[in-house]
Amino acid sequence: MQNREIRLVSRPEGLPTERNFEIRDTKVGKPVAGEVLLRTLYISVDPYLRGRMREGRSYIAPFEVGQVIVSGAVAEVIDSASPALKAGDVVVSGSLPWQLYSVANAQTVQKIDPTVAPISTALGVLGMPGLTAYFGLLDIGKPQAGETVVVSGAAGAVGTVVCQIAKIKGCRVIAIAGSAEKTDFLLRELGVDVAINYKDGNRYKSAEELRKEVAASCPGGVNVYFDNVGGEISDGVLPLISSRARIVVCGLISQYNSQKLEVGLRPQPFLLVNSALMQGFIITQYAQRFGEGVRELGNWLTEGKLKYAETIVDGFDNTPKAFIGLFKGENLGKQIVKVAEFRLP
Amino acid sequence: MQNREIRLVSRPEGLPTERNFEIRDTKVGKPVAGEVLLRTLYISVDPYLRGRMREGRSYIAPFEVGQVIVSGAVAEVIDSASPALKAGDVVVSGSLPWQLYSVANAQTVQKIDPTVAPISTALGVLGMPGLTAYFGLLDIGKPQAGETVVVSGAAGAVGTVVCQIAKIKGCRVIAIAGSAEKTDFLLRELGVDVAINYKDGNRYKSAEELRKEVAASCPGGVNVYFDNVGGEISDGVLPLISSRARIVVCGLISQYNSQKLEVGLRPQPFLLVNSALMQGFIITQYAQRFGEGVRELGNWLTEGKLKYAETIVDGFDNTPKAFIGLFKGENLGKQIVKVAEFRLP
Repeated sequence: MQNREIRLVSRPEGLPTERNFEIRDTKVGKPVAGEVLLRTLYISVDPYLRGRMREGRSYIAPFEVGQVIVSGAVAEVIDSASPALKAGDVVVSGSLPWQLYSVANAQTVQKIDPTVAPISTALGVLGMPGLTAYFGLLDIGKPQAGETVVVSGAAGAVGTVVCQIAKIKGCRVIAIAGSAEKTDFLLRELGVDVAINYKDGNRYKSAEELRKEVAASCPGGVNVYFDNVGGEISDGVLPLISSRARIVVCGLISQYNSQKLEVGLRPQPFLLVNSALMQGFIITQYAQRFGEGVRELGNWLTEGKLKYAETIVDGFDNTPKAFIGLFKGENLGKQIVKVAEFRLP
Repeated sequence: MQNREIRLVSRPEGLPTERNFEIRDTKVGKPVAGEVLLRTLYISVDPYLRGRMREGRSYIAPFEVGQVIVSGAVAEVIDSASPALKAGDVVVSGSLPWQLYSVANAQTVQKIDPTVAPISTALGVLGMPGLTAYFGLLDIGKPQAGETVVVSGAAGAVGTVVCQIAKIKGCRVIAIAGSAEKTDFLLRELGVDVAINYKDGNRYKSAEELRKEVAASCPGGVNVYFDNVGGEISDGVLPLISSRARIVVCGLISQYNSQKLEVGLRPQPFLLVNSALMQGFIITQYAQRFGEGVRELGNWLTEGKLKYAETIVDGFDNTPKAFIGLFKGENLGKQIVKVAEFRLP
């Protein structure tokens, strides 16, 4: 049986290109005791992977040049040497290789029930992005009913969930996204109060322009700013925070391709005069509470309070392209690569 | 009896000058029921007053042009129409006018015991700066024994107390200050582990130079950064924070005279990859716990674990000059203006 894999062959400089990756045919491994052979069904491409393509210290080890990329994926067990899983089981993992088939320790994957929700949601609303939204917003942002929550990257995998949880919690939600299609979706499908397009045609609006638009929508100031984007958009929002505001630094997709330390508006003066908090977090620090998060998100999904969006690219070989598209704002909701068809038995 | 007052007559542009203030003779008022007549003994000049000289929204109302400046002061009751206080009592308040004499509601001042510690300490180590150090460091910075704490503005009213509390808590302390006299004081008198001069002669070191010096002193990274200064010094420290670091935004003296929104190194990437926190605060939010703070600080003072430094300028008319000197780093420890002599009866 033929296998196929995608390796990092050079570190991206700025925006990654397909030339940073190599796709090649290989062999399928065999599971030994405790292992399973997996057929990849869906691959999750995530902005944070860009950080791993860079050399140097971070919260997670960098990918080595020549290494097969590893990310979240949903897979089907096709052969098992572990009593924990059997052929036909569907599993999710935060770190499976970009391969058609892979061998994994059964302990490192988690079985999911394919009858509860579409299995791709294990990579989105019921997976890491959903949990990131849930814990980041509720544990750090601590939104109170009646407060104003501004969300950047609002139409992305995390942002779409943040917007809806904030609405569930009774907040006024101002969503910032990068196209009319996205702002329409946020307003009509997700029910945000105001959606702001950070582009004017192909032109990126300046921090000052955005500040005026956000200010007009937030007469009482911004109580929670859930930031997925950073850069100029944050420069637009920061001066509008209110007393005791909470700024959740969840992602900085506008900055990930930067080659140098970025300069911009200093947030300290706004934090100081407002006794405000700005906090970064990594979702794995909430690992002990993932069960709670998945349960809550699942309930909201079942009750119809939570919708999800996915942008699905078809075909394993398109994985690098789907990843690169994240930085061009090509995805609405969670960006996923469909690798193989799965049917309930 | 002749009175004298200092009014703001124009808003400073950049560094304040003496021309922004007017000193003039006036009359002494008379206390009515519930009020006391106070003779000012010591005036506290504080960096945060610069913010009040600016127009516009902040956590505290701006001074109006023409208004007498108000700040912390220690005063003696010389006439009382309140049963709560009698002539000879010494009081402290966070908001007394820059006047030789003033009339105040007895409820708005707090009696202090002049036999416990020199009365000027009610404006420094046992007053707002001490409490700011205490709550900012312990409640937000949460230093753990063995951690590395970096303090900017380390030789100032707040910084000197922060350095010592961090040492009491068993931390390694890196103190940043602006002269050899200050770094000597921090090393020899306050016992910090490393003291870094942010100047080289009259030249301010760059963020990169400071970063190298701080990095050399913090091989394990910075766990707590207590920031009184902001600007380039913070740009030097931020890239060195460690996982789960806490950045206490206490003051930004390097920025207070700026006329525009300041641009500098974006802290978000460092907060994100380190799951770190950056928080501003205003000491009044801890008002309910001031008793605890004063008690602890007083105990450390009595036990000889806490030293304090004061820079005392003599003469009421020198108050504006003493205030302006804060922005030139002229003070070691708490900057105070001595207005009148006080002797224990």
